[in-house]
Amino acid sequence: MHIDIITTLPRLVESPFSDSILKRAQTKGLVTVNVVDLRPYSTNKHRTTDDYAFGGGAGMVMMIEPIDNCINDLKSKRTYDEVIYMSPDGELFQQSIANELSLKQNLILLCGHYKGVDERVRQHLVTREISIGDYVLSGGELAAAVVADAVIRLLPGVLSDETSALTDSFQAGLVAPPVYTRPAEYKGWKVPDVLLSGHSVKIEEWRHDQAIERTRARRPGLLE
Amino acid sequence: MHIDIITTLPRLVESPFSDSILKRAQTKGLVTVNVVDLRPYSTNKHRTTDDYAFGGGAGMVMMIEPIDNCINDLKSKRTYDEVIYMSPDGELFQQSIANELSLKQNLILLCGHYKGVDERVRQHLVTREISIGDYVLSGGELAAAVVADAVIRLLPGVLSDETSALTDSFQAGLVAPPVYTRPAEYKGWKVPDVLLSGHSVKIEEWRHDQAIERTRARRPGLLE
Repeated sequence: MHIDIITTLPRLVESPFSDSILKRAQTKGLVTVNVVDLRPYSTNKHRTTDDYAFGGGAGMVMMIEPIDNCINDLKSKRTYDEVIYMSPDGELFQQSIANELSLKQNLILLCGHYKGVDERVRQHLVTREISIGDYVLSGGELAAAVVADAVIRLLPGVLSDETSALTDSFQAGLVAPPVYTRPAEYKGWKVPDVLLSGHSVKIEEWRHDQAIERTRARRPGLLE
Repeated sequence: MHIDIITTLPRLVESPFSDSILKRAQTKGLVTVNVVDLRPYSTNKHRTTDDYAFGGGAGMVMMIEPIDNCINDLKSKRTYDEVIYMSPDGELFQQSIANELSLKQNLILLCGHYKGVDERVRQHLVTREISIGDYVLSGGELAAAVVADAVIRLLPGVLSDETSALTDSFQAGLVAPPVYTRPAEYKGWKVPDVLLSGHSVKIEEWRHDQAIERTRARRPGLLE
């Protein structure tokens, strides 16, 4: 898999890919993540990529031309499955979308900033718009990192134990059951007896019951 | 405002705070963000902070003792409004929670990794659990950065134009209307005439209509 992240602030998205699972995935050759600086694609002399909004009002708008130039340059080298614009009002990101995107080959993630991109970018240049949630961030960079992280960790071979992702929250339509590790007692707070019983059938039953109970309490929508 | 982010992978959360709005907010003294490395709070000789799950199964679990030590150390220096654990099955983060948290003084954001933290941490040490969405990330670090970003940008003085955040998506119960900037025509794609009319009343009417129409199409739940 190859992911291009287009941004005017490349430094913002560097560190999430420089350590841990996302770094190992790149080292293993399972994914390449390329952070593309939008500024060199600006054609004006100050290399600006934004301008005031037509009609007035607070906040700057990202211009279509540098984005069009950048996407065309990337497309001259690869065929992309999706050109995704990160936007608060996009399709709400959820595990099923992460699963779906993890099967793609090449993705562009376009990060907006300030008031977002010129509407014509959304109408003509992107194939999909994704929101990571109903809240506003200072830019699309963290949202792009979130989507990339959720997708990359699903690629075969990225997690050290492949069964690990399958037992995650949401993958079986349930949130995960409680987990415990040593010590068995800490400040009087004990681990449930069943987990110390060594009785694997009972343990699996307990976990399943707990997952259902917790899903009912926290994400009832998953059970409908 | 002061935010402590507890993590075993401090490098993952460095860059989101090292540029742009979040950096300026710190430079201006409007917020301090302190990334706290959990490892020194481990009491075993290898400074490990996780262990196998009781009852078996894939994935490691973060131990309670280092987390308890770390939180106690932080609490010896400050009084915290909330100790928030970032978890996929937590309360779903949305703009209203960002607004609420932006009024607090001191926050701890605890990042889980792998299968998450020992359940006793959730029962006894945290005051709140927040999820940024129904998907699984490789750790809580990006989620903590998302929450911090959404909150910090709301602090008075952080955005250069204070009206800017008030016209964001979700703040008026609507997603934002389309925005356009120069050029007025690009590859035959034109800006709507009304935005070029200079007629501010008509422009505001158009924006309001567009916001309602777009909210109906993309986030009908906001209109209920």
